[in-house]
Amino acid sequence: MIEYRNLRVALLGGGTVGAQVARLMLEQADEMASRVGASLELVGIAVRDVDAQRSVDLPHELFTTDAESLILGADIVIELMGGIEPARSYILLAINSGADVVTANKALLAEHGPELFAAADQVGAQLNYEAAVAGAIPIVRPLRDSLAGDRVKRILGIVNGTTNFILDRMDTEGDTLEQALAMATDLGYAEADPTADIGGYDAAQKAALLASLAFHTPVPLASVYREGITEVTPEQIASARKAGYVVKLLAICERLTDGTGQEGVSARVYPAMVHRSHPLASVHGANNAVFVEAESAGSLMFYGAGAGGVETASAVLGDLVSIARRHVVGGPGFAASNHAAMPILSINTVITRYVVTLEVTDATGVLATVAKVFSDHHVSLALVEQSMTPALPGTASRAAVSATTTLVIGTHEATEAALAATVRDLSTNHVVTGVTSVLRVEGV
Amino acid sequence: MIEYRNLRVALLGGGTVGAQVARLMLEQADEMASRVGASLELVGIAVRDVDAQRSVDLPHELFTTDAESLILGADIVIELMGGIEPARSYILLAINSGADVVTANKALLAEHGPELFAAADQVGAQLNYEAAVAGAIPIVRPLRDSLAGDRVKRILGIVNGTTNFILDRMDTEGDTLEQALAMATDLGYAEADPTADIGGYDAAQKAALLASLAFHTPVPLASVYREGITEVTPEQIASARKAGYVVKLLAICERLTDGTGQEGVSARVYPAMVHRSHPLASVHGANNAVFVEAESAGSLMFYGAGAGGVETASAVLGDLVSIARRHVVGGPGFAASNHAAMPILSINTVITRYVVTLEVTDATGVLATVAKVFSDHHVSLALVEQSMTPALPGTASRAAVSATTTLVIGTHEATEAALAATVRDLSTNHVVTGVTSVLRVEGV
Repeated sequence: MIEYRNLRVALLGGGTVGAQVARLMLEQADEMASRVGASLELVGIAVRDVDAQRSVDLPHELFTTDAESLILGADIVIELMGGIEPARSYILLAINSGADVVTANKALLAEHGPELFAAADQVGAQLNYEAAVAGAIPIVRPLRDSLAGDRVKRILGIVNGTTNFILDRMDTEGDTLEQALAMATDLGYAEADPTADIGGYDAAQKAALLASLAFHTPVPLASVYREGITEVTPEQIASARKAGYVVKLLAICERLTDGTGQEGVSARVYPAMVHRSHPLASVHGANNAVFVEAESAGSLMFYGAGAGGVETASAVLGDLVSIARRHVVGGPGFAASNHAAMPILSINTVITRYVVTLEVTDATGVLATVAKVFSDHHVSLALVEQSMTPALPGTASRAAVSATTTLVIGTHEATEAALAATVRDLSTNHVVTGVTSVLRVEGV
Repeated sequence: MIEYRNLRVALLGGGTVGAQVARLMLEQADEMASRVGASLELVGIAVRDVDAQRSVDLPHELFTTDAESLILGADIVIELMGGIEPARSYILLAINSGADVVTANKALLAEHGPELFAAADQVGAQLNYEAAVAGAIPIVRPLRDSLAGDRVKRILGIVNGTTNFILDRMDTEGDTLEQALAMATDLGYAEADPTADIGGYDAAQKAALLASLAFHTPVPLASVYREGITEVTPEQIASARKAGYVVKLLAICERLTDGTGQEGVSARVYPAMVHRSHPLASVHGANNAVFVEAESAGSLMFYGAGAGGVETASAVLGDLVSIARRHVVGGPGFAASNHAAMPILSINTVITRYVVTLEVTDATGVLATVAKVFSDHHVSLALVEQSMTPALPGTASRAAVSATTTLVIGTHEATEAALAATVRDLSTNHVVTGVTSVLRVEGV
């Protein structure tokens, strides 16, 4: 029987992920001890209500409402409470009392990452957060360590399982957004209030973390441009499908140069068309994937479950074992790498391709009028398709009263600023009765 | 201007990968120094012939034939010579003279990994080898660190780009093996002597490394069961395609239990049928992917370029930066994790599904005879398809002379031992004129 040194681990939060972490720590205690070279003792779980119902049966005596005492007696603190406060104060308390920290709190890191990393840095504490970026998918170490000798050019991430599930249902089953969301809620993929997911807020937090890691530059959440999937229509998805594309909510982190020659980074989230031959197009259901384009390594993709209690717990335990090993072998942890500190460029400087769908009056010269609006803003056209407006179900009267036609216009690469100005002018142009859809095309 | 401490880096080998590593170290010196917190000085490149033609233009004064002096003056040694000797002796010399080592030498690690890791362990040296396992795809850190709190159940890897290119051509273009191999050679994917690739030897080395990492158990190359793709026929690929499958050369590492209840690990390489809905099925061309099934994390996939000079160089430089950071911040490296030391089980204990194609005499009762052979070995049948032998191009005479029919038999799960015995008996059975094909089905 090997006698191991004992490391005291405090857990903050007893929710879905927390309960799984506790269960696995108890079940795999021997195995983890042999991997670490020290035993990992779960000394307590701080919760709001020690008598609340848990998803996993755990010893009652582990639970406490006194988080501060628990933290002060721990070598390693695992924060899985979520939210900004008191999570932020507890992590700072842990760091300043000599503990190392594992967290899965993306909201907190996206808002207060620099403050927390600086605090950890100052005392030589470790702050690991693999589970915060893409659930169970290992992405922090690959970006921070494996690609440390390379230059990341771009990241395209499907980092929110709920929205991927919804868009996938809309694509494969022809569901409406409402139908797909209802099913996601039934299956437990979506929260009672789905705003964080479908509004793109969760993806924006992850985009901020991914961009910070990839570009060694602090990227605050406020600088991430964000559009959710609430405006995505079955018609957009059907027309993308017809053209060989699929619509995905993408978190995009990109190194780019603006019009003045300034090099910087962009982080943004929006639904975009991805060609079906792209590896991201085959990411189905609630799965996540992070597609990385690096200067030397070329294209890499990391695929897996982006959420789920036990899946996320795997990433938390990986961080825990890494930290514990460092306790055993000594040496400081690795601080956040901010040496590059590149400027963060506005969404206006981003260059991509667009597909714009317009409803226009069906008259001679309309196409020329529309084309001129694009060319006035130096947006050049790659493709124009004109079709009679079909009588949509439930809109039978429409075909009778309106002599309109649908124009689908694909552009060459253009800046967001030029495209926005074009759309503004189109929407007030007398031949245009409506701008039905504007979708970006990514992954080319 | 920041003044950095200087780390002396020696490069052994000036081939495709070595030349790219040297180029990137020279071109990105400032960027890498700021990432590491120390400058990385390339002090020399040991080669056999200092005047040989290189794929990259590098300063002539860097080249030397005196590898030993170079090693003795270095803080970090990068070994990219390949082969067993003198690479092994040079790495041991580097370790024992106080240097850390990066290597991409899968043949050496698969044969002598335990010896080298033990040597590094003894003096606290670091030995990094990300580029040895799957080229540019970060897989060592995810398996070693990110999944350190999880249990890997199985790995299915497409780890050889040449054979994936060949099988993909056979599937998508209908090429024969010879045609596809010729094209791979033309494109530079295959060596002049392609045995290491198409014989499965390269994949077997990687399987040994993957299994050692995933199961914390030394898995010697000799214990890896290996079949190459040389026997794969266009007919097998066409019939797999018809059934919704694609044939891939897989490196499989699995935790399993044999008939006596003994838990152990298996590492094996063979061509197998993978269903088209499996993420591995969409890995095309010379790309590689490693599909990992873990107890908590679920299914993960790591995808990217498995070979190529500059791609592999990216992985080498990631290892270099990690090692150099450790020089700066102090603390020992991480040794190979061998605590589990599980037994390695024979291929005979492996359980999988099979598709067996037989040529049988076209007479009453044949199916019953064949079915009895399977049931005698307790191999149960999932599917039987019988079809008239088509007159193959160039074999017009065959249809005329033989009254045979083709039986395609899919089995339920069975052990390799039972299947091998079944096939042995089938091949000597009087109703069977030939066992045309035996393919395993994986990824279910």
